[in-house]
Amino acid sequence: MEKLRVTFLGTATSIGIPVIGCDCSVCRSEDPRNKRLRSSIYVETDACCWVVDTGPDFRTQCLREDIRQVDAVLYTHSHMDHVVGFDDLRRFTFGHDIEMPIHATAETLDDLQRMFHYAFNGENRYTGYIKPNPHVIDGSFQLGDCEVTPLPVSHGKVETIGFQFQLPSGPRFGYVSDCKTLSEAAEETLREVDVLVIDALRFTPHPTHMNFDEALATAERLNARQTWFTHFSDEVDHQKAEATLPKGVALAYDGLKLEI
Amino acid sequence: MEKLRVTFLGTATSIGIPVIGCDCSVCRSEDPRNKRLRSSIYVETDACCWVVDTGPDFRTQCLREDIRQVDAVLYTHSHMDHVVGFDDLRRFTFGHDIEMPIHATAETLDDLQRMFHYAFNGENRYTGYIKPNPHVIDGSFQLGDCEVTPLPVSHGKVETIGFQFQLPSGPRFGYVSDCKTLSEAAEETLREVDVLVIDALRFTPHPTHMNFDEALATAERLNARQTWFTHFSDEVDHQKAEATLPKGVALAYDGLKLEI
Repeated sequence: MEKLRVTFLGTATSIGIPVIGCDCSVCRSEDPRNKRLRSSIYVETDACCWVVDTGPDFRTQCLREDIRQVDAVLYTHSHMDHVVGFDDLRRFTFGHDIEMPIHATAETLDDLQRMFHYAFNGENRYTGYIKPNPHVIDGSFQLGDCEVTPLPVSHGKVETIGFQFQLPSGPRFGYVSDCKTLSEAAEETLREVDVLVIDALRFTPHPTHMNFDEALATAERLNARQTWFTHFSDEVDHQKAEATLPKGVALAYDGLKLEI
Repeated sequence: MEKLRVTFLGTATSIGIPVIGCDCSVCRSEDPRNKRLRSSIYVETDACCWVVDTGPDFRTQCLREDIRQVDAVLYTHSHMDHVVGFDDLRRFTFGHDIEMPIHATAETLDDLQRMFHYAFNGENRYTGYIKPNPHVIDGSFQLGDCEVTPLPVSHGKVETIGFQFQLPSGPRFGYVSDCKTLSEAAEETLREVDVLVIDALRFTPHPTHMNFDEALATAERLNARQTWFTHFSDEVDHQKAEATLPKGVALAYDGLKLEI
């Protein structure tokens, strides 16, 4: 049976781990699972492959995982740690007379067009430049034979979405990297989800991200079969934090691969 | 005598070396000098320290060089490979109630304000966010006791500058990372310069960057005492390219440190 193959490109919050100039035990840790680039995943099916978010580490992440094909890009929201690697997408259209499909909400597309106007304004159509083809997300859509359902979530002032991915008659995979609370619609979609990846910034509360307690309560309420936490701050030491988690819940790390 | 201490944070053109998905001999080389992040330098004096440009690799570069202080940021121009690491500057004001001085031309500041409007619009004054203090470059200015002279150069459609740095009665250091030709004013300022860093993208010609021949002719015409090439494509193998250069001219590499 066809599966979704997921690679975690990054699992850190905005500043990355280690944090510049920080001497805390997590930032100085030798555990490779405590070295975290900005949050992003790469998803492959037999028909199509795509990346969710392109933060500043996007090139580094592509080199590390030897990613050579990206058929589409999905954005959760337009915070800097999720979008500023946009220009490095040019390598995936280089030499081909093709556009890169960019799927995002209208608000996020507006922000991308403001930030990267040279790419969207149609004036720089060189072979070597990224030529985006914007698709407004306003409901479920298909990537190859995978159904993608946007999940509206609350995350500070910026309209933010997560995604559910499902192959025909395959299990459901939910990815919500940045959120404080799920919307009712998101909760309904994700109920009994097979694999859930969810924002769990740290132990202490935060105004725009779930902490561990909130993420655990959400996973339990949704009755997710398997849950992976992501989008960590340097409060989170991988080994110590994982020891506190119940069965069926674990911490994602950069380079983790799942088959769903 | 006080010196300018210069660290090369990166020496690559926009896409970085290795290039994503490229199997050429330079991109697959084991020579660490062929591993290049996007072009930027860090300059320290006894009184002040600053960075020229903050590309996508800025956080990685700060971690590699253990940079813990940045008193000011200078921008050459607003192409993506020189600016999109802007948000990672937040670490250098974190916990301090200070603003980060941002020196750039009016055109570049306009672009920065468009791209990073959340930082410039005064609405997000959280401790943890970067709070820029824009300074329009319209002539020479001081950073500590260092005189900074902007050098207008031609580089495609975007107004671009290089910089000359000079401590009181010290030698002159010129940095021009992106240019096709120098302006008359830039040539006049840089004549007999002690150390010149100049764009030398590759051997073959390019519409907006100097190639090796053009950079060599410029260094010779200016009668620079010592010249370092930078901003390379993957045409440039460090060892092979350096063997072709005359005395007094060499290739910069990531991590190279100069005392001037």
